[in-house]
Amino acid sequence: VVNSPYHKDMFQLLKTDAVVEGVHFSPDTPLASVGWKALCRPISDIAATGGIPRHALITVAAPSYWKRNDWISLYRGIGKATLSFELSVIGGETVRSPGPLFISVALVGYARKEHLRLRSGGHPGDLICVTGRLGGSFTSGRHLRFHPRLREGLWLSQQKGVTAMMDLSDGLGSDLPKLASASGCSFQIAFEKIPLNRGCSIQDAVSDGEDYELLFTLQPPKRKSLLEKWSSLFPRLPLTCIGQLTASSVASTPIASGYDHLKA
Amino acid sequence: VVNSPYHKDMFQLLKTDAVVEGVHFSPDTPLASVGWKALCRPISDIAATGGIPRHALITVAAPSYWKRNDWISLYRGIGKATLSFELSVIGGETVRSPGPLFISVALVGYARKEHLRLRSGGHPGDLICVTGRLGGSFTSGRHLRFHPRLREGLWLSQQKGVTAMMDLSDGLGSDLPKLASASGCSFQIAFEKIPLNRGCSIQDAVSDGEDYELLFTLQPPKRKSLLEKWSSLFPRLPLTCIGQLTASSVASTPIASGYDHLKA
Repeated sequence: VVNSPYHKDMFQLLKTDAVVEGVHFSPDTPLASVGWKALCRPISDIAATGGIPRHALITVAAPSYWKRNDWISLYRGIGKATLSFELSVIGGETVRSPGPLFISVALVGYARKEHLRLRSGGHPGDLICVTGRLGGSFTSGRHLRFHPRLREGLWLSQQKGVTAMMDLSDGLGSDLPKLASASGCSFQIAFEKIPLNRGCSIQDAVSDGEDYELLFTLQPPKRKSLLEKWSSLFPRLPLTCIGQLTASSVASTPIASGYDHLKA
Repeated sequence: VVNSPYHKDMFQLLKTDAVVEGVHFSPDTPLASVGWKALCRPISDIAATGGIPRHALITVAAPSYWKRNDWISLYRGIGKATLSFELSVIGGETVRSPGPLFISVALVGYARKEHLRLRSGGHPGDLICVTGRLGGSFTSGRHLRFHPRLREGLWLSQQKGVTAMMDLSDGLGSDLPKLASASGCSFQIAFEKIPLNRGCSIQDAVSDGEDYELLFTLQPPKRKSLLEKWSSLFPRLPLTCIGQLTASSVASTPIASGYDHLKA
């Protein structure tokens, strides 16, 4: 986040993210899905701040055996994502990779200063809420075809009482402690309230990661009206309150940590 | 290049560039040098447009065996470059690489609209000029410690008669045809005028690549005054006119193509 770009009331957002063969996708993943995922991950990050992505730079380190059709497949996925979320690829680079396929995406976006939401905005007593359902992203293949919550994040950032927000990329068990810590709080979770994807256990929902749902905190008095508006605007996407931030002097609910790319 | 950021008279410049172990540096290259090179390559690109880099996003895919000291070494080189060229690292990402070390840098910079120089600005008759000396960048290790021509590019972009500019990253034999083609011209080169690094042949200077010198075109009437000012401002850096753009109907001087990362 850096100061004003086009307007003194705006922040400019810069986000970079990379996917690596063997870490974020397997060698037999269709390249169109790889392209979609590479672009949608940083879109999800910007969405979770209440921002709008506009420009993308894409760097591809491709194995030397790549043929024309491989590039076409990859860019079919990238192109689909840019169309779906209305951004432009304005540059990039291709290099040869002696190892796995590697794609790095840098996004430039914008947010109104008054609407920007960070991890650090939460206060003790705020409700902890999540969009959608959690768990099983890898086994179901959802991590390759998810839709970043761009409209939802933008709308939430404009609602009074939404104090902190982030996207769930590493898993609730890893991301919630980050949000709470950035807000100077501890947290209490009602595990039985966590919305689960079909076939998933609570443990899966906590630790699988790559849900790309929104995790946000909400002042309790705003709960009823926000849930009502939400269900009329986004009727097919659940919104669930699963716990509460507490003073940092209280011990947090013990929660298994989520997926950590560097340790995995 | 996208329209105005902070000011209607400015362009915002976005550039991404990547270095890969085994392509741009070897496994035994000191990591501080790798960090320096990773940052200085896109700085050189922005310098060659007459722009100023401001913010950097850095993505590192590091082998899983990396220790704390490896990160410190890498960021020593990155930090040295940000201090030398006055830019800020404002974000980035680290992921695990199952293969080689991979570093992708995205830079955001600015240029005054009237000063922006592109490859496409040349006209038949313009002189072709280069800064510094060419060739031998890999064998001498110069590709790991070069200084992007930031002050020089900024100054050149402000001089009347400088019509097109780019940096020499792939080698004169590959880059000059790109500049000429973007300008809709052919070119004539006097090979014996190409400024050579010690121990280098003309062939080396044409095809080695990674010189990171500036290649630009100049209206002939401005030659004398520009060379005079140059030698008082930058007394230790040669500036040499090596040829001329011609109408596209004329055949270009045959020139061996330079280094191509994808084909190498």
